[in-house]
Amino acid sequence: MSSETDCALCKTDGGRLIWRGAEFRLIWADDALLPAFYRVVWNAHVAEFSDLTALQRLTCLDAVALAEQLLRETLAPDKINLASLGNVVPHLHWHVIARWRWDAYWPQSAWSAAQRPANEAMLVSLSARLPEVDAVLQRAFAQRFGGP
Amino acid sequence: MSSETDCALCKTDGGRLIWRGAEFRLIWADDALLPAFYRVVWNAHVAEFSDLTALQRLTCLDAVALAEQLLRETLAPDKINLASLGNVVPHLHWHVIARWRWDAYWPQSAWSAAQRPANEAMLVSLSARLPEVDAVLQRAFAQRFGGP
Repeated sequence: MSSETDCALCKTDGGRLIWRGAEFRLIWADDALLPAFYRVVWNAHVAEFSDLTALQRLTCLDAVALAEQLLRETLAPDKINLASLGNVVPHLHWHVIARWRWDAYWPQSAWSAAQRPANEAMLVSLSARLPEVDAVLQRAFAQRFGGP
Repeated sequence: MSSETDCALCKTDGGRLIWRGAEFRLIWADDALLPAFYRVVWNAHVAEFSDLTALQRLTCLDAVALAEQLLRETLAPDKINLASLGNVVPHLHWHVIARWRWDAYWPQSAWSAAQRPANEAMLVSLSARLPEVDAVLQRAFAQRFGGP
């Protein structure tokens, strides 16, 4: 998992691409229980946040904060969760997850055991709003970081 | 949990204090299975990273990156995990966790189910190195961000 050849985030986008720039991309993670789950993926194969230069770290976290801000504005979730873990895929990627009190894992993490069955009605209603959220994210990333 | 009066991170340091400045503090989390677990806690009661000003976000992430870098230099862990979750305590705090292949949760998150029993020998050996790590963190935070 530690070489570029074997790395899932070197070989693929790692999810549905929302926006791509020279240094990083924004993807939708396609998590069945947490539909408003996006990732900022650094394009180059580096493992740790502190492998980036200071300027790259600023850019990367500016992207994470922008995604967070837009998810708050469009979806008004109960909480945002941010994380850079990478134990399984050691290629720098930031999880940006909108969380709700009704979601299957609340108040635990997205990587914890589910706390309750999925709320299908809420998942359907939330998923219906995601095309608009994706469009907002795409426009805002293009405006802030360039590209289409 | 959402008011300052009830907030554990307003009422207490939230762990053993390593360093404190006007805007944030660094604490040792005292996690039995993950001894090299620290937190950068924002002093003011804000819930989300994007509640900070742009300049505060830079400072906060600079502190997180510094803690990460120092844990890598002193302990050479297999991975660093960073996260701002706050579903239970919605007061901005960043988890900075050094992870090893032998730890109880590897390769899952610190909030997942344990994958194996604790490796007591490794935990004892790692814990013995923490006073030196704490001292390195304290000195570096004081140098970078001021204070004692």
